[in-house]
Amino acid sequence: MPSTIYDVTTWTIPGLPGTTAYTDIGAVVNSIIADIKANQPTQASKPGAVVYIPPGDYSLKTRIVIDISYLQVKGSGHGFTSSSIRYNAGSTASWFEVWPGGSRIKVENTDGNSEAILINRGGSPRLSSIELIDFCLDGLSFSPNQNSYLNGKIGIRSTSDTDSLRIAGMGMVYLQRGLVITGADALSVTGNFIAECGSCIELIGSGQACLVNDNLVGAGFVGFSIYAENHFGLLISGNNIFPRGKSSVHLKACSNSSITANRLHAFYSGMIQFESGCTNNLVASNHFLRQRESFPPFQANNNGLDDLFGLVHINGSGNTVASNHFSFDVAAAYVQPLGATPTIVLVKSGANNFVATNHTIANISVKTVVLDGSTVNTKVLDCGSPGEFQALAGSSYGFRATP
Amino acid sequence: MPSTIYDVTTWTIPGLPGTTAYTDIGAVVNSIIADIKANQPTQASKPGAVVYIPPGDYSLKTRIVIDISYLQVKGSGHGFTSSSIRYNAGSTASWFEVWPGGSRIKVENTDGNSEAILINRGGSPRLSSIELIDFCLDGLSFSPNQNSYLNGKIGIRSTSDTDSLRIAGMGMVYLQRGLVITGADALSVTGNFIAECGSCIELIGSGQACLVNDNLVGAGFVGFSIYAENHFGLLISGNNIFPRGKSSVHLKACSNSSITANRLHAFYSGMIQFESGCTNNLVASNHFLRQRESFPPFQANNNGLDDLFGLVHINGSGNTVASNHFSFDVAAAYVQPLGATPTIVLVKSGANNFVATNHTIANISVKTVVLDGSTVNTKVLDCGSPGEFQALAGSSYGFRATP
Amino acid sequence: MPSTIYDVTTWTIPGLPGTTAYTDIGAVVNSIIADIKANQPTQASKPGAVVYIPPGDYSLKTRIVIDISYLQVKGSGHGFTSSSIRYNAGSTASWFEVWPGGSRIKVENTDGNSEAILINRGGSPRLSSIELIDFCLDGLSFSPNQNSYLNGKIGIRSTSDTDSLRIAGMGMVYLQRGLVITGADALSVTGNFIAECGSCIELIGSGQACLVNDNLVGAGFVGFSIYAENHFGLLISGNNIFPRGKSSVHLKACSNSSITANRLHAFYSGMIQFESGCTNNLVASNHFLRQRESFPPFQANNNGLDDLFGLVHINGSGNTVASNHFSFDVAAAYVQPLGATPTIVLVKSGANNFVATNHTIANISVKTVVLDGSTVNTKVLDCGSPGEFQALAGSSYGFRATP
Repeated sequence: MPSTIYDVTTWTIPGLPGTTAYTDIGAVVNSIIADIKANQPTQASKPGAVVYIPPGDYSLKTRIVIDISYLQVKGSGHGFTSSSIRYNAGSTASWFEVWPGGSRIKVENTDGNSEAILINRGGSPRLSSIELIDFCLDGLSFSPNQNSYLNGKIGIRSTSDTDSLRIAGMGMVYLQRGLVITGADALSVTGNFIAECGSCIELIGSGQACLVNDNLVGAGFVGFSIYAENHFGLLISGNNIFPRGKSSVHLKACSNSSITANRLHAFYSGMIQFESGCTNNLVASNHFLRQRESFPPFQANNNGLDDLFGLVHINGSGNTVASNHFSFDVAAAYVQPLGATPTIVLVKSGANNFVATNHTIANISVKTVVLDGSTVNTKVLDCGSPGEFQALAGSSYGFRATP
Repeated sequence: MPSTIYDVTTWTIPGLPGTTAYTDIGAVVNSIIADIKANQPTQASKPGAVVYIPPGDYSLKTRIVIDISYLQVKGSGHGFTSSSIRYNAGSTASWFEVWPGGSRIKVENTDGNSEAILINRGGSPRLSSIELIDFCLDGLSFSPNQNSYLNGKIGIRSTSDTDSLRIAGMGMVYLQRGLVITGADALSVTGNFIAECGSCIELIGSGQACLVNDNLVGAGFVGFSIYAENHFGLLISGNNIFPRGKSSVHLKACSNSSITANRLHAFYSGMIQFESGCTNNLVASNHFLRQRESFPPFQANNNGLDDLFGLVHINGSGNTVASNHFSFDVAAAYVQPLGATPTIVLVKSGANNFVATNHTIANISVKTVVLDGSTVNTKVLDCGSPGEFQALAGSSYGFRATP
Repeated sequence: MPSTIYDVTTWTIPGLPGTTAYTDIGAVVNSIIADIKANQPTQASKPGAVVYIPPGDYSLKTRIVIDISYLQVKGSGHGFTSSSIRYNAGSTASWFEVWPGGSRIKVENTDGNSEAILINRGGSPRLSSIELIDFCLDGLSFSPNQNSYLNGKIGIRSTSDTDSLRIAGMGMVYLQRGLVITGADALSVTGNFIAECGSCIELIGSGQACLVNDNLVGAGFVGFSIYAENHFGLLISGNNIFPRGKSSVHLKACSNSSITANRLHAFYSGMIQFESGCTNNLVASNHFLRQRESFPPFQANNNGLDDLFGLVHINGSGNTVASNHFSFDVAAAYVQPLGATPTIVLVKSGANNFVATNHTIANISVKTVVLDGSTVNTKVLDCGSPGEFQALAGSSYGFRATP
């Protein structure tokens, strides 16, 4: 049987000996995928292969298109370093190194595509068990300025349904969008370092039974750290989600999903946002910290939401928010609108939400739980004093103050 | 020193050049293990070795027997795909591929044994730090039909005590039993994809200080997704446990163990079952969803438990069930016994159990907590209204309704 | 481009052909690092390299000094076995093996240094994305006796600031200090097996946004299982922390950090210690078990703290302790001071701490929550009966008994 082990640095594209992994790793990987297909023509035996990317700086000019199951692309290092610090540092002439490293793909498409890696296949079955592990996708720069988080580049995108994908140990930096997965079933996104990207993790279209655990994540003020839409049974646990991110976790029309045991740090309201009727989700045992932006180049930016929006903003019914800690530490002068009493948990719509045993520490007076007038039968237990609770006219609820 | 790196595709069994990893990977790995023993004869230096399984389809005719410590068997891909969908799909003539892949072992024992991999050694010390990583064990088919979950095949079994084993990144599919570990101390089972197996993870005999985290797991209606007996200090966290499974997590005579931050989805009652006096365990920050079986070929099956059994069924004393979310969504017509009011948490026996701050959303009227008449001093706090609580005659308890 | 893949067993030190990885792996790795530097002279392209350590027993005589970013040092096996059991076992003449294994570095410095691996570099930027993965650091023995946990050896130490380091899948055993990291930003310590070390994980100096998840950890009675000082935004989740450890998790002057979904087992008071004003931290969904030392050779030892110190000992303000389970199982004869009523949670200082929905099971009468007279506005909800709560004179608080 032909070898199923490929090394991008030793592969020669048939007919194109001048193209190497250093000049276009995309063309090389696509050629390897073509070889795998040629070697595995039989429906009954398509085990896939492993494509190894040793540590190195590789330019990607051509988008990689993965349309076979069971392909493992593996590097030896996620290679993250802060490009944001460097771009804002002034002279770096004396620096030891100035770029990310590890098994590093420089995303420099000249093919008119925005993705470094596209996962897509029509027909049946869905693509299964593609694994992308322990390499670096570096978008290099943003424009019009290095703090804009904009460059149109996407690290990994799937546009057809998949099953049992694994994205693990990756580094992504300075991409407008890091990971964008459509129609995921039983996806696993674990142990990645995805930061200084416009958006980090986006699970779009729909999906079920996915797992996003143990990642270090932090998006720009323009995008999402973790986003999911029309997902069902998503588990988001054990992540350290740092700023800036226009939100930390944003669910749209998701149900029966779980956000537990995460640490979330943000510079704006709307740390967890439930949009468009999220139902029966759990937010438990998370730590929230809301501060003002600390990095001067970014202090003029924000996500456009004021402090009445809530650190947790619930639209939908039947959700549970329990056993969380909230720290709010924003000087009164920076509260929006000025003079407002910030909201920690806002139940904006829906019925039968349950908000219990959450502890808030704030440097100024806050409302720990606010109920919109449209809300029905919310339960608010042990979340602060009567004065910290606000139920707008029309709402119905059960309330018990912390003694 | 002889190499400690082995590749199953390049190893030749002494005297048996006609047997390859493709014809019998079991015989090949056993021959490699014999070579490791021959090369490491000295008690003072037995570091073990790594056995690499490149992506490929490998038949296993002979059971692998691991009786040395520190053996790492490693592939490059867990290779899961749904065989259940395929077997129930009708014609797959147009499909790109029809089998699981990655570093895939086809479990086809012709040696009279049921295990693909057996871990066993008598004497001292216990086997330590065996690592099985990132390959696929595929049981291929069930009989008498492909939805029976029966074929007598076991993926990995240990029958003697072990220390510090690591099972990580594995794929297992269409085995009657996936992982069966006896007498585990400080076992780590993480990041695996074990589904469409009769039972997935079984920790039997006894054990202590183990960790089952971040797995995607889903058993058949005949068996366990995660089972442990006589375990102490087991941590089950961050798992996404999908149907069907006759239970999601089943503990028998376990103590001081922890089930936290998991997402559980099931088609039957008895999602968490504590059997035979489980004491002082914690069930916290989990999300439970109970629905009716959605896949027509399986709608006639169930685990034999009715809706009075409880989604959580507690036998034993001193357990804590706190900060969980329960979604119950079964049409009244499918409730068993017909007309019954389903139970969410049933405290069936024991003293001093604590059930607090759990939120239930149900499409029909349910009892959120039911206490058997034999139970003593259960505390039930903030788990619903007085009408949702039922304490059978003889029970003693403290109760506080959700306001 | 020169290869970025190194194997310690095939590397020859220029001018020192007689030194091998078996005689001094430290000298070999340092020589490899020198070669990487020579091959990557340009500031604009320093991707680093991978240094592979196959399974084997390697002596380290010379400290490894890592002063380049993006170096991945990777083995094929964490190789833990219990040296403590062996040293206390009597004759091991009949044992199969007597030492740890896997990719095992025997820490035998003859260079006057205490570290096996030192991470350090001055100047800018901080070292980034160094990865140490899946090998074993074995300190071999303690002195003056094998139960002292003392030998002056350190596994991995960083003494300058770092970003995005990854320590994963490592084994460490019989080191006085396993991992000692200074000034960590976005460090990831996951899936390691660090036990039978004086101290296991120490995050010193200061740090932010780190993640310590899914480890198996257990220190000696002389040191820390997990320790952090001046950290901010640290997440400690999903760990199984076993004895003995003078504490399980010890935070000093830490803020906005999170200890969730862990299992903790200890033989002394002070399982979680907050020292020197820890503020706004979360302790949720953890399982605590306090027993008496079970191993006869260690029953004379302890951490010097009596049973009034608390299993959880809080100094500082604004902390949350919610939804935890506590098991206390120590015979009255072993309580210190004799006849005292042990304390589960002691709020020793500070204001606005929140202790709610914690369930305690104890074999003898205990105080579940005790407030020092200096404490202000603690909230104690659903943590036991009025008789189990003790507020010393001067304290202010809100209290609600479990019904």
